[in-house]
Amino acid sequence: MTTAPLRSYAGGRWRAPTDDGRPLHDAVTGDEVARISSAGIDMAGMLDHGRRVGGPALRELTFHQRAGLLKALAAHLRERRDELYAVSARTGATLFDSRFDVDGGISVLQAYATRGRRELPNDTVYVEGAVEPLSKGGTFVGQHVATSLRGVAVQVNAFNFPVWGPLEKLAPAFLAGVPSVIKPASPTAFLTAKLVELIVGSGLLPEGTLQFIAGGVGDLFDHLTEQDLVSFTGSAATAARLRTHPAIVNRAVRFSAEADSLNLSILGPDAAPGTPEFDLYVKQLVTEMTVKAGQKCTAIRRAFVPEQHVNAVCEAVAARLAKVTVGNPAAEGVRMGALAGLEQREEVRRSVKALSDAGRIVFGDPDTVDVLDADAERGAFVSPLLLVGDPDRAEPHEVEAFGPVSTVLPYGSTEQVVALAARGQGSLAGSVVTGDTAFARDVVLGVAPWHGRLLVLTRADAQESTGHGSPLPALVHGGPGRAGGGEELGGLRGVLHHMQRTAVQADPDTLTAITGRWVPGSVRTETEEHPFRKHLEELRLGDTIVAGPRVVTQEDVEHFAEFTGDTFYAHMDQQAAEANPLFGGRVAHGYLVVSLAAGLFVDPDPGPVLANFGVDNLRFLTPVKFDDALTVTLTCKQITPRDSAGYGEVRWDADVTRQDGESVARYDVLTLVAKRKAGR
Amino acid sequence: MTTAPLRSYAGGRWRAPTDDGRPLHDAVTGDEVARISSAGIDMAGMLDHGRRVGGPALRELTFHQRAGLLKALAAHLRERRDELYAVSARTGATLFDSRFDVDGGISVLQAYATRGRRELPNDTVYVEGAVEPLSKGGTFVGQHVATSLRGVAVQVNAFNFPVWGPLEKLAPAFLAGVPSVIKPASPTAFLTAKLVELIVGSGLLPEGTLQFIAGGVGDLFDHLTEQDLVSFTGSAATAARLRTHPAIVNRAVRFSAEADSLNLSILGPDAAPGTPEFDLYVKQLVTEMTVKAGQKCTAIRRAFVPEQHVNAVCEAVAARLAKVTVGNPAAEGVRMGALAGLEQREEVRRSVKALSDAGRIVFGDPDTVDVLDADAERGAFVSPLLLVGDPDRAEPHEVEAFGPVSTVLPYGSTEQVVALAARGQGSLAGSVVTGDTAFARDVVLGVAPWHGRLLVLTRADAQESTGHGSPLPALVHGGPGRAGGGEELGGLRGVLHHMQRTAVQADPDTLTAITGRWVPGSVRTETEEHPFRKHLEELRLGDTIVAGPRVVTQEDVEHFAEFTGDTFYAHMDQQAAEANPLFGGRVAHGYLVVSLAAGLFVDPDPGPVLANFGVDNLRFLTPVKFDDALTVTLTCKQITPRDSAGYGEVRWDADVTRQDGESVARYDVLTLVAKRKAGR
Repeated sequence: MTTAPLRSYAGGRWRAPTDDGRPLHDAVTGDEVARISSAGIDMAGMLDHGRRVGGPALRELTFHQRAGLLKALAAHLRERRDELYAVSARTGATLFDSRFDVDGGISVLQAYATRGRRELPNDTVYVEGAVEPLSKGGTFVGQHVATSLRGVAVQVNAFNFPVWGPLEKLAPAFLAGVPSVIKPASPTAFLTAKLVELIVGSGLLPEGTLQFIAGGVGDLFDHLTEQDLVSFTGSAATAARLRTHPAIVNRAVRFSAEADSLNLSILGPDAAPGTPEFDLYVKQLVTEMTVKAGQKCTAIRRAFVPEQHVNAVCEAVAARLAKVTVGNPAAEGVRMGALAGLEQREEVRRSVKALSDAGRIVFGDPDTVDVLDADAERGAFVSPLLLVGDPDRAEPHEVEAFGPVSTVLPYGSTEQVVALAARGQGSLAGSVVTGDTAFARDVVLGVAPWHGRLLVLTRADAQESTGHGSPLPALVHGGPGRAGGGEELGGLRGVLHHMQRTAVQADPDTLTAITGRWVPGSVRTETEEHPFRKHLEELRLGDTIVAGPRVVTQEDVEHFAEFTGDTFYAHMDQQAAEANPLFGGRVAHGYLVVSLAAGLFVDPDPGPVLANFGVDNLRFLTPVKFDDALTVTLTCKQITPRDSAGYGEVRWDADVTRQDGESVARYDVLTLVAKRKAGR
Repeated sequence: MTTAPLRSYAGGRWRAPTDDGRPLHDAVTGDEVARISSAGIDMAGMLDHGRRVGGPALRELTFHQRAGLLKALAAHLRERRDELYAVSARTGATLFDSRFDVDGGISVLQAYATRGRRELPNDTVYVEGAVEPLSKGGTFVGQHVATSLRGVAVQVNAFNFPVWGPLEKLAPAFLAGVPSVIKPASPTAFLTAKLVELIVGSGLLPEGTLQFIAGGVGDLFDHLTEQDLVSFTGSAATAARLRTHPAIVNRAVRFSAEADSLNLSILGPDAAPGTPEFDLYVKQLVTEMTVKAGQKCTAIRRAFVPEQHVNAVCEAVAARLAKVTVGNPAAEGVRMGALAGLEQREEVRRSVKALSDAGRIVFGDPDTVDVLDADAERGAFVSPLLLVGDPDRAEPHEVEAFGPVSTVLPYGSTEQVVALAARGQGSLAGSVVTGDTAFARDVVLGVAPWHGRLLVLTRADAQESTGHGSPLPALVHGGPGRAGGGEELGGLRGVLHHMQRTAVQADPDTLTAITGRWVPGSVRTETEEHPFRKHLEELRLGDTIVAGPRVVTQEDVEHFAEFTGDTFYAHMDQQAAEANPLFGGRVAHGYLVVSLAAGLFVDPDPGPVLANFGVDNLRFLTPVKFDDALTVTLTCKQITPRDSAGYGEVRWDADVTRQDGESVARYDVLTLVAKRKAGR
């Protein structure tokens, strides 16, 4: 039966290719699912559409507004998960696998929505790090800012996560203000097409912020500029080809790759058979081998086991693998489905041949497998395969069989396993299973230069651990060397990868105007009205109250000491205080200083300031002696309205000075301030 | 006269090449200065030496110890500046130019030494960002760490900064624990050779941490691995060639390039003739054209001027250029020296030809120049050249004449100048000269995606500004696109570029063991002795004191209000407090809570804790109501000994809870704690 070709979503329309394309097959039945081709799709036009329509629309929105759309999109997709599961089954995935892919992807959208509102300003410019003083007089200062790249994020995804892959790339790009062009790998592109259909159908994302290519990228790369970026997941060979494309090289296009990876899992010498860690190791290895039929970039390929435990591990793993039912994912009791296609199976068989030349198979047969409710030849089924390898040979460290295949490698000492780990030449993820924290430390710090992520699995975290193979939005995903050298996710890091970092040097007033944050040295505006009486909409950066002086007497200090119980000798004992190298005499409590400062700047009556919810970066700079007179200068530094609340956060610069103008304490005061219009 | 070939410093020895090499010439006299060749130098052996000898030696040292060596090296070189100036003159540099190069380089060492001790731990692992909660129960948490790459930093430098270039690359690499191989551009390699001679002669840097190639890199790149990195400064063409080297591509070697750049300087429409900003613009343009004879990657090539001010700018710049004496840098009164060599002059003349096809020369003649005390043909002299160009043509935005050459380009509107700026396709540095903060903001945020650094020059910062052309260690140096897409310096960012970021997932106790920071959820050890009685050497992560309870009464709150003057209604007025959406009743002051907490945990007698010098990340989590009983748990979280002081910094985790165990406030308390052995 001939099916219809998948359509691309380009330039605001769904577009069919101009030819019939080639067939895509159901991984379980071998039936044709759809056809695929991008013939006739105007690639330069897609980039142009993203730049002219999508980018400006996104950059009109603040980080918080973009986060709000991601949240809404997550909710929209969550309601339609079943539609995605249904299509996902045709890629060979069990329901468990589909949840990993679909729910995992939705949770990335959700995580970035939350993080965007919590960690980014309600603005379009990100201010990074501290103001850098660049001159003695303070008239020349620096600040790094990040602005949205003005191009398009081209996202080339692998076949193994047709939903999670596109979503984990889309979320940070979208939050960064950069439109996406999604190009899935062909074998499972029909599932990504379904995803894009749901997203476009939602009407939530501004037009031009998401486009979709079914099929090859054509001449797309020829049209990339320095404002575009490419995030690639796939084979190292393809990564190398794309990375050396003339446009990428000559325009220095940002290129992030997530490629091959011979991920390791190390069993600690302490984790002998009978310990919880031994069982955790075995269970995790079987899980990593069988979830997604081992088609995970993060799956364990190299299982390093202390020599004395190799037999026990092999027996325990084999026993568990023997209970894994392979077959039609739709059938009751099936634990492992099919590979994504027959080509993938051929590739796995070739790799296992190479691996078994450097070791021996201790479980499974690459050529036959018993399957439930399916045709083992028409469907892309393969048995889980456990090998024991020679760790001195190259193959176990270099040949990635992208299926349910792992190799057990014996090791002797910590030093040796660290050296063997390095032979992988860079990996996405590794795990150490041990109850020995010293071993964990030595191994983690020893292999960290070769890894993007490392998990230590112990009896203490096993219950709550998300497992070796799961990238998390909060943590970086990617690895050096063979793994591609790229980095994705990692919370805000993933957003900033899509932005240009620029150092801005200026006088404080100009810098304040550029960053939207009041910079020390900028104009302070003392208004007649106390700034605490202003609602959020009325407050301006630089609004200031100067209050004081308040003299701090010996009686104040002694009274405060008695009242709070803080009778530290530097406050109470003249002789001992004189011997203190920093004070040279009795001083006031730091907490007294900030308490008195609050007493000076607070406006007592009910008003827009709802609460002081925190203090940041408090430093006591100069000791306060008896009879020093304190003045506090409080200046509005940053205003963050909340779109969905009747208030916002206001950060104030507090500078407490004594009679000679010297600062004795500096800090940020954090308040919640009501909007005049309390509605949303 | 035939000179001796420069020697390379490789594998711990100075090595002469096996052939005579080719001659290098004095830029002023044309005389042969030295010969250069790397024939016979074992490149693979250099990498191996760095990896086996230099890397391990560096990684034995903490960040603070490495910073100490950089500081000592800066002092050593500062004392020998005159030796460098003398050689520098032969590159065509005036004394002013030499200071820019030599003193500038030394100041980078100094800046990284200071920053290393201030911002990095006295340890070998860098802990980045916050602990990421990964589970509800808190038994599974994440943390990013950065570890030293285990390879070598190959540093390919340009001819224009033979001292600053190598030092600005060495400092962050060294601090990161990565050994350097320095490869200067040939024309001025004799000056870099002198620098390396001084460094090696100092005996300060551990063997293997610095090696030097005089001449070509031979087969060096073939031997790079994923643990090495390349920092390149030079032409875009060479960058493209190196970036596509098979080893770089296949091993995903980190490659950072700083290449061509058509840097802009924009005059604001407000800055009419007669304003201070007009004069600043003209003066800066002349400085940027003539310092180092315009051979600065950051020099202004595109001078954007409002149409109505073009004639005035050209006249004012020409008048100043007419007063610039060109000639032998050693001669009294010479303001501009020679280009680095005759080849460079030919290249400049070719570029000026292309530029003048798209405009006209308004000052100078590319083929003749009056020189003082030198031979204008044997020396690589060229006149400063000012052009007016057609902004719609490609050449002014694409042809970089790497000499004292700038093109004035007229513009009409803010929108237009932002669009024209983008035609440079990525630059290192730009400047805006204006007194109009709104224009500054619009232009800076408009062109930021194409820039690594932007300077706003105003009458307010002019006196203290370090100028358009000066990269600073605190700020990133590098730019997108044509500028190479790389990033150097930027304070700690430059250090982290040489380290691998790894996400570590573990239970809190294991994470504490790995990072050397106490992680919330880890074991707390309540010792019999108060932890404030322990000296720095005796304190352990997790040492804890639990103190309390202390009941907070209405009288306490009213008394505190009266005493401090903080009579905010939420503390004092039941009816008003009930209307507060967050409190719903009267509450204790946050400052009272932390003051009482200090009263609970402080140990009054003289002891090792010298002072509480600050508080970080204080958050008031739950309102404290009357008669709540507070308990504080204070736990030793991070210990930072100071190598050169009798104390160190100790960060404590403070958690104030009420009777039901709910946290009411959380924060870090920062203290200085004495060592038992007070000596260094």
